[in-house]
Amino acid sequence: MNREELIHQIKSKRSFLCIGLDTDIKKIPNHLLDSDDPVFEFNKQIIDSTKDLCVAYKPNIAFYESLGVSGWNSLQKTLDYIPEDIFTIADAKRGDIGNTSNMYARAFFENMNFDSVTVAPYMGSDSVTPFLEFEDKWAIVLALTSNKGGLDFQKIEDKNGKRLFEQVLETSKGWGTDENMMYVVGATRAHQLSEIREIIPNHFLLVPGVGAQGGDLKEVAEYGMNTDCGLLVNSSRGIIYASSDIDFAEKARQEVGKLQHRMDILLSEKGI
Amino acid sequence: MNREELIHQIKSKRSFLCIGLDTDIKKIPNHLLDSDDPVFEFNKQIIDSTKDLCVAYKPNIAFYESLGVSGWNSLQKTLDYIPEDIFTIADAKRGDIGNTSNMYARAFFENMNFDSVTVAPYMGSDSVTPFLEFEDKWAIVLALTSNKGGLDFQKIEDKNGKRLFEQVLETSKGWGTDENMMYVVGATRAHQLSEIREIIPNHFLLVPGVGAQGGDLKEVAEYGMNTDCGLLVNSSRGIIYASSDIDFAEKARQEVGKLQHRMDILLSEKGI
Repeated sequence: MNREELIHQIKSKRSFLCIGLDTDIKKIPNHLLDSDDPVFEFNKQIIDSTKDLCVAYKPNIAFYESLGVSGWNSLQKTLDYIPEDIFTIADAKRGDIGNTSNMYARAFFENMNFDSVTVAPYMGSDSVTPFLEFEDKWAIVLALTSNKGGLDFQKIEDKNGKRLFEQVLETSKGWGTDENMMYVVGATRAHQLSEIREIIPNHFLLVPGVGAQGGDLKEVAEYGMNTDCGLLVNSSRGIIYASSDIDFAEKARQEVGKLQHRMDILLSEKGI
Repeated sequence: MNREELIHQIKSKRSFLCIGLDTDIKKIPNHLLDSDDPVFEFNKQIIDSTKDLCVAYKPNIAFYESLGVSGWNSLQKTLDYIPEDIFTIADAKRGDIGNTSNMYARAFFENMNFDSVTVAPYMGSDSVTPFLEFEDKWAIVLALTSNKGGLDFQKIEDKNGKRLFEQVLETSKGWGTDENMMYVVGATRAHQLSEIREIIPNHFLLVPGVGAQGGDLKEVAEYGMNTDCGLLVNSSRGIIYASSDIDFAEKARQEVGKLQHRMDILLSEKGI
């Protein structure tokens, strides 16, 4: 999916919500465990009940990989089931030397047909650029992450006071364009979004860490939204595990509905 | 495999060689393409012809992942075929927030039975520590990589002149011990090994980038070897693609033999 189509989806659905499919076999409602493929069955019902209110799905690849071959089969079936007009993100945090990153890109863009992959920047240019060589496909590079360990290295300052995540943004933005690169910026760092927007005003940001409560959503929009929206805000557990019972899909839709309603207002306030 | 067993293997085989199984279906000799599982058949013959001369095998996970489910099957069969007294490395460069890294650890340590996984440090402590919670299993953390892009961020200096890879070493060494952590240090940076040894004198280092020509091997040993050896030196393409013909396994053994012979001498010179 290209940038123009993504923006069109956001405007027509009045939503910039990404739903994280961190589907854990141990957390799936009991009544699904008898089906042939409980992980896919769970995802299918989540997709059925939320697809008109979100613009992206983001399977967390680790959850599928941990199940071995059956997990990869569930992932492929899930990807095939997602409607074509919804943006798909393989949240895989891959990245290696050039020839190896090229293999990862082929895994997610050719063997499977994801629109994008999340990529770690530590190994530099040739670990990221192989993901940029596929038409209408995207690399989503880690910049500032919302986890505790995100503070260990990402905010180390160089001699000029520039922090590592700022170096990553400034250096890597030259490897591609805002048509094939996005960045991961954690929502718990919302106040830093305005600094980030000074470096990359136009790129889309993937913002995880916004819970179903929507506490930070307003702040994320205030500091991070640009005139094209430029945001994909992700929620995973707050949506897919809103209920652990037979009503899980219905409850997921309720949570998604609340978020989408807030997003509609935030888009309108920005004149989008 | 624990540290003591690994050192025992190095001493008894007179080798600290790791063979990278970067098995590319496009580079496999033609005569294997008719077999049921060409990737596994290639690996099997490489293993048969080299297992007495090396102490570790390192499948590059991207090459298997790019083939989808059949690739994961080839990987599992390869892993099962590697003798138990040989150390196994899943070269996967994984790393994510805590609950997700835990899933990756389960994928490689439980669903499969690798001894170790390579891990990217950008997301900090909780992206690495879940790999340290399995008995006799190892996290091999990226410190200084040998690719071109390795220079983009890893050598950025902070206010005190400390480079990022040094920060990674100093901070992360406290997350585990030299019994469950190793570090990746590129062989093209051999002269920096003595600086690295000041920070981590005892940890094992995984050193990729030493070609079959063995040009840098002496330098790597000079600056990087400690009294337990403390090195796993990897070669991939120089070995497994030494010939693209029916004699590929035989030619691979010849290349491995040359490296092992040099390693024997280097170990003796160190009194090991």
